[in-house]
Amino acid sequence: MKLQVTQENLSKALNSVARVASTRGTLPVLANVLLKTINNRLSIAGTNLDIAITHYIGSKVTKEGAITVPARLMQDFVNSLPSGVINLELEDNKLRITTEKYQSVINGMAADDFPVMPDINKGTEWSITGKILKSALQQIVIAASNDEARPILTGVLFHDYEGVLYAVATDSYRLAERVLIPTTENIKLLVPAGAMHDLLRILTDYDEEVRIVHNNQQILFKAGDVELVTRLIEGSYPDYRKLIPKEFTNKATLKKSEFINITKVSSLFARESAGSITVGLDEKTDELNLHSTASQLGENTSSANAKVDGKGKITLNSKYLLDAISVFNGEKITISFNSKLEPAILFDPNNKDYLHVIMPLKS
Amino acid sequence: MKLQVTQENLSKALNSVARVASTRGTLPVLANVLLKTINNRLSIAGTNLDIAITHYIGSKVTKEGAITVPARLMQDFVNSLPSGVINLELEDNKLRITTEKYQSVINGMAADDFPVMPDINKGTEWSITGKILKSALQQIVIAASNDEARPILTGVLFHDYEGVLYAVATDSYRLAERVLIPTTENIKLLVPAGAMHDLLRILTDYDEEVRIVHNNQQILFKAGDVELVTRLIEGSYPDYRKLIPKEFTNKATLKKSEFINITKVSSLFARESAGSITVGLDEKTDELNLHSTASQLGENTSSANAKVDGKGKITLNSKYLLDAISVFNGEKITISFNSKLEPAILFDPNNKDYLHVIMPLKS
Repeated sequence: MKLQVTQENLSKALNSVARVASTRGTLPVLANVLLKTINNRLSIAGTNLDIAITHYIGSKVTKEGAITVPARLMQDFVNSLPSGVINLELEDNKLRITTEKYQSVINGMAADDFPVMPDINKGTEWSITGKILKSALQQIVIAASNDEARPILTGVLFHDYEGVLYAVATDSYRLAERVLIPTTENIKLLVPAGAMHDLLRILTDYDEEVRIVHNNQQILFKAGDVELVTRLIEGSYPDYRKLIPKEFTNKATLKKSEFINITKVSSLFARESAGSITVGLDEKTDELNLHSTASQLGENTSSANAKVDGKGKITLNSKYLLDAISVFNGEKITISFNSKLEPAILFDPNNKDYLHVIMPLKS
Repeated sequence: MKLQVTQENLSKALNSVARVASTRGTLPVLANVLLKTINNRLSIAGTNLDIAITHYIGSKVTKEGAITVPARLMQDFVNSLPSGVINLELEDNKLRITTEKYQSVINGMAADDFPVMPDINKGTEWSITGKILKSALQQIVIAASNDEARPILTGVLFHDYEGVLYAVATDSYRLAERVLIPTTENIKLLVPAGAMHDLLRILTDYDEEVRIVHNNQQILFKAGDVELVTRLIEGSYPDYRKLIPKEFTNKATLKKSEFINITKVSSLFARESAGSITVGLDEKTDELNLHSTASQLGENTSSANAKVDGKGKITLNSKYLLDAISVFNGEKITISFNSKLEPAILFDPNNKDYLHVIMPLKS
């Protein structure tokens, strides 16, 4: 193996791929990235067996070949090099990396030891723009669970309903649902939220078409020169739609920026009470109030001007409320609820594509 | 106690004072800050018994008084408030804090429980500009030790020598010495480096005169509206001057930016060998080379153009080298040494006010 690449391209590829490599596993080769020439390109791949990311970059290949090298050292080293041409040359299992002022040898492990990336190019195919997928995932992944004891809730569900594709996540305490695109496909895919965090990083600067291919076990996201493959989660997702009320007796619309500020202040006093804060609406004064009490430390009431219908109270977790408010893109947010015992719903009054549901706490 | 302050002033004061308050100690009141009216000012004070910081801000006082409140909650709360007027009012031990949209009550503890700040206004007095003191401390504190087993090395020594005041620190592996100002005083003060870190934060935006008052046990730094008091460390400081060679057979002068870059790259490969990197000079090629080896992972040679006299090698700790290079302010750095067994000295060839000495590693 002998080739030339630019520092910029190799650095970018390593930064997206090395993240899934891990030294914590039992298989030492998973701490490595696989470098492999393919025609006049270099593929850089990393996997943790659940998720595999492959990045292709342009390369001047003099001699074909493949090797795996420690992901972190390779990433840190290439990131530290000045921009310009990097020469890579393999001698036995030693990768020689040279630039004008830097010469390094990194000891590798044979490419044969690297787990074969799953191939799912046969399967259902559809596509969506990176722009829409990214904005949707940013609003959805926060609601997924980290609790591996209930694997279904650790996923993001992509599913069609009345000709529209939706993305949904819930950890049973809160739920986020976002409209994606019209579709004629029959789609029901439960994708690990962890993989969607990695996909979000890959899509940071990518707004173009993302091609999606899936079979019963796996799903492939193809965004330009980067591919992400992950397993699908099995099991049946809860029928969440029946949990979302359609009519509300209490409703307040206020500025997102003010809602964030008062929630932040209020949450400081909610640290002792497991984040419990009480939202109060008052249509006479057109105010939304947040009240929190820390028995040892003190208490707080914060208020903001709002357009209010009704006069009710509901107790919510301050972190969930702050998470939800933060992912809205518009200038205003509406919060609505019926009683202390039913969920509160947040949406943008000017764009109903996104719903965020928060279950109440006992108060 | 009843008064008005601005959010901006109270926030700034709390941010410099709350840092020394700690919840880890055995005395609960040390997790609090003391608020106390003094004529038409409010003093905000915190202490960990070693260091005490007091910040004075302008205030419209309607009723005198004093209280202590939890430092972190008070700081976080005031930082989150919008800018403008804040009303503070004491009812029993409860501090009521109100702005237009926020009302809070923070439960306090009586001011009498707060340790009395040491008073050392009788003592030797001198002064230095914040600008010089700050730039010197930034270059010195990195060389002080964290090891409480040798308390003398955890201090920064201020001392006069032939009519000049110097600041010095050493952890026995490296030593930093900086010229401060001409002086006629007889000064020998060993000040805890931890307190100097706090002083640096206080001086961030302050270039004016800093007044210093000290007796045998304590030292006071007075920078505008902020006062820092700390204990002095007892004991006799090593006679470090005799350790610094005056003549050198090997010397290289190079750009600071390049020296930093190659040291960073080289240190990546030195992780396995306790940070050991070998500096090599070659006057024929006018290059400085850094070589590091990670037996498992590989090896690296990085080089930079330099003006070189001599042809020698010395092995240094990469972290110490990087720390040292980073605190120089000029464009160029000279590194000089005699043999593998004698210390290496770094200085700015255009400004000899600052010396950094690094002991060699065995190679």
